Amino acid sequence: MSQKMDKKRAVSPTRQENYPEWFQECVKISQLAEPSIVRGCMIFKPHGCALWEQIKSQLDFRFKQLGVKNVYMPLFIPVRELQKEAEHIEGFAKECAVVTHHRLIVDDKGELVVDPEAKMEEPYVVRPTSELLFGDAMSRWIHSYRDLPMLLNQWANVVRWEMRTRPFLRTAEFLWQEGHTAHATKEDANRFAKKMLHEYARFAREILAISVVEGQKPESEKFPGANITYTIEAMMQDGKALQAGTSHDLGQNFAKASMIRFTDQEGSLQFAHTTSWGVTTRLIGALMMVHADDDGAVLPPRAAPTHVGIVPFLMKDSDPSIVLGFIDRLKMALESKNYHFGPIQVEVDLTDERSSEKAWRFKKMGIPHIIQVGMKEAEAGTITLIERDLMDTSKETLEVSDYIESVVDRLDAMQARMLDKSKKFREQNTHFAKTRAEAIHFLENGVGFVDCFMAEDAALEKELKEKYSVTIRCIPMETLEERRPCIFTDKEGHRVLIAKAY
Amino acid sequence: MSQKMDKKRAVSPTRQENYPEWFQECVKISQLAEPSIVRGCMIFKPHGCALWEQIKSQLDFRFKQLGVKNVYMPLFIPVRELQKEAEHIEGFAKECAVVTHHRLIVDDKGELVVDPEAKMEEPYVVRPTSELLFGDAMSRWIHSYRDLPMLLNQWANVVRWEMRTRPFLRTAEFLWQEGHTAHATKEDANRFAKKMLHEYARFAREILAISVVEGQKPESEKFPGANITYTIEAMMQDGKALQAGTSHDLGQNFAKASMIRFTDQEGSLQFAHTTSWGVTTRLIGALMMVHADDDGAVLPPRAAPTHVGIVPFLMKDSDPSIVLGFIDRLKMALESKNYHFGPIQVEVDLTDERSSEKAWRFKKMGIPHIIQVGMKEAEAGTITLIERDLMDTSKETLEVSDYIESVVDRLDAMQARMLDKSKKFREQNTHFAKTRAEAIHFLENGVGFVDCFMAEDAALEKELKEKYSVTIRCIPMETLEERRPCIFTDKEGHRVLIAKAY
Repeated sequence: MSQKMDKKRAVSPTRQENYPEWFQECVKISQLAEPSIVRGCMIFKPHGCALWEQIKSQLDFRFKQLGVKNVYMPLFIPVRELQKEAEHIEGFAKECAVVTHHRLIVDDKGELVVDPEAKMEEPYVVRPTSELLFGDAMSRWIHSYRDLPMLLNQWANVVRWEMRTRPFLRTAEFLWQEGHTAHATKEDANRFAKKMLHEYARFAREILAISVVEGQKPESEKFPGANITYTIEAMMQDGKALQAGTSHDLGQNFAKASMIRFTDQEGSLQFAHTTSWGVTTRLIGALMMVHADDDGAVLPPRAAPTHVGIVPFLMKDSDPSIVLGFIDRLKMALESKNYHFGPIQVEVDLTDERSSEKAWRFKKMGIPHIIQVGMKEAEAGTITLIERDLMDTSKETLEVSDYIESVVDRLDAMQARMLDKSKKFREQNTHFAKTRAEAIHFLENGVGFVDCFMAEDAALEKELKEKYSVTIRCIPMETLEERRPCIFTDKEGHRVLIAKAY
Repeated sequence: MSQKMDKKRAVSPTRQENYPEWFQECVKISQLAEPSIVRGCMIFKPHGCALWEQIKSQLDFRFKQLGVKNVYMPLFIPVRELQKEAEHIEGFAKECAVVTHHRLIVDDKGELVVDPEAKMEEPYVVRPTSELLFGDAMSRWIHSYRDLPMLLNQWANVVRWEMRTRPFLRTAEFLWQEGHTAHATKEDANRFAKKMLHEYARFAREILAISVVEGQKPESEKFPGANITYTIEAMMQDGKALQAGTSHDLGQNFAKASMIRFTDQEGSLQFAHTTSWGVTTRLIGALMMVHADDDGAVLPPRAAPTHVGIVPFLMKDSDPSIVLGFIDRLKMALESKNYHFGPIQVEVDLTDERSSEKAWRFKKMGIPHIIQVGMKEAEAGTITLIERDLMDTSKETLEVSDYIESVVDRLDAMQARMLDKSKKFREQNTHFAKTRAEAIHFLENGVGFVDCFMAEDAALEKELKEKYSVTIRCIPMETLEERRPCIFTDKEGHRVLIAKAY
């Protein structure tokens, strides 16, 4: 987190001064989202909405490659139906939006109020998840082994009545996808849950340039009702962990609660083995917390909805037709090239703002390449390029033909630099502790993850949580089979990552 | 509506026997959607969800070509905020889902109930539209003429508490897009509203193969708060009209209610001129009601999520490796070709159902090309093709190379045939009435639209509605300038279309 304190930065406070406030401010100036008049709910502005569309379409493509099909379930769930789930799952989330009436009326004072006559016979909740409706549908759609595996997914908005909210990281309404699959065998279900986790990890690395750890949650942190919860954990620039995606092996628990059964090849009736997996608009929060700097967002090229922002520099003695004609040709040349999934996306700022303001707007939005073209450049056939992750240190003037020739490689190089930086940061801030004393030293003085052998033990986990606000984030998949004595209790333990988390 | 009554059809009742029941059954067997446990809400099954994704992505592409940007607004609207709109608009829709509480608890009897302690200070409604939130956002985002035009859109779910629901046509929750734009001048706003209507009409014709009439609503039928409402009206196979999309020129009405103002080039503060426009999942209802037949859905190739369904015919003496190897190569050859926006989409039914059942499944789903391949075909290098709109009359055996060569042209020919059929049906069932007597004759005895000159007159419209259940559907754009004496009242009238409507 190197800072040039002598230079005015776009975000105030800076990351070092106040990380949580920097984040709020950074979301705002990056034009991604803003608070709304509805408590705990955000407005996704055009830039934020386009970023989510990028994430969504690329994930959706990957899901479809795996044979997953999308469905859409109703927004509401009758409370009576939730009863089942409440019996089944102890940690059932009860903080939700409850619909009790179906009409407004204008009262005697001319005010719009809830019509007391329009009370519903049975209240609904706005879905906190559609798990229950998927279970109900699968119990009807699955008859025989021929129907398996059934691989379904939904993109939707969900609502959880959160008390303390934070843009993208925790909001009352958020956008997500929830996958639900049913399989004939325990092994198939487990394999699929792991496959989806790995798909999320690849997406985080390849598209979001976030170096995540793939792991398994300890018993204390797993999803209620799951046999195993798999997770990808990312490290934010303040050293805290953020759970960026989860995949659950639900065994037959969910199938038994929802009566998802099939006739096997021998003709006998069996409960299916199911999985569920999801990521949310929280991924945008992760993107910001991992990559953004004190000048705003820094978007990895493969996730960025706009790749190149062009700023015309028009001075008094410039001939606008020459400068803008040059820019037009540049834009067309760029748009005729493909980057990753489609044509390079270019935005030219033609407003009558000052040129330096326009460049700053693109920087704050995190556009990967910011290009300045003035009279000098137009006449010389050159452009001035700033690569957003390197900012002014990267500023260079190039022949326009060289830029067009190299733009795809440059974007890919930026993508690789960003992933590399995220990986190095995580590695440098992950501390292997051989003893209890070492671990405590890191927990008290350091930022980042503590990597150590530890036994799962409720009392110990409670103590760590109370004293240091940390939890076991995961047992990394890479070392899942390793066992050594716990550095705290001496019982046999897994190699785990311990950290504060969002 | 020719029927071969001697042949068993997949849908019972047929269109002629009972059109409304045929529709319900047709939606079901086509695998598009099914009812849910939530009153008035549907489940979009994989086929229906994929069809909506096709419609959505193609419309979204067109919007973006016009410079429209997507945003996402919160699901909820505080009732207090709706007050403004209620004052502004007389016909304010009050039937909606009202959220009054934010928690469930388990009561003494162990039942899940609404927590009376968790009553919200101010109730929310689930958005019936996000108009109000767009107004609020635009009032903050627009400052000067430089910010105009502002062209925004949202894809979202909305809820209206409908008493009588029907799949796709009228559901409590539905999916839609709502566009909202602000312009500096009256002329710009009107031009844009008309442009969007025309975009909808082109989409309906080019993609959905529905021959719609572009028109303007009479005063009595326009959107409350609009200066002018434009509409596309389609004719269903029972001769009734269905409003398939609308675009509103809101003048300064909406800007005044929401305080959307801008500083013009002379520095004075002006109210903006706004538009709004939308289409919904109702388009799928229109698709079915226009094209489906007594064997199920018939999807126009440009909207169909799957273009080719392949059925392996495996008999006792077939060699599966030869048949399936042949099919694999055919699938790969088809998928390497582009149709319209992307590769040809192929589905092979490899289940162990009977082959004739598999072919019927594809027919009911409305897959444009249904191909049968057995041992005979595999050995001869041929395929047997059924084109869904022509069914068995089109059944032909082709050299596989000829099929691959011609598949794109064949799909386009089917698309053109379907549009042509829709156009002819509408034209044949539109009756020009020169006199009152002629009009009444058609209204009493005919199906379809009555085309006549008519003055807008509340008493007359009420009479027609009460006696014949018809309304003025629109004043077609093509003849918007024509004026002649009203055939009912002799006052000066427009040339209008009158019909029963969904």
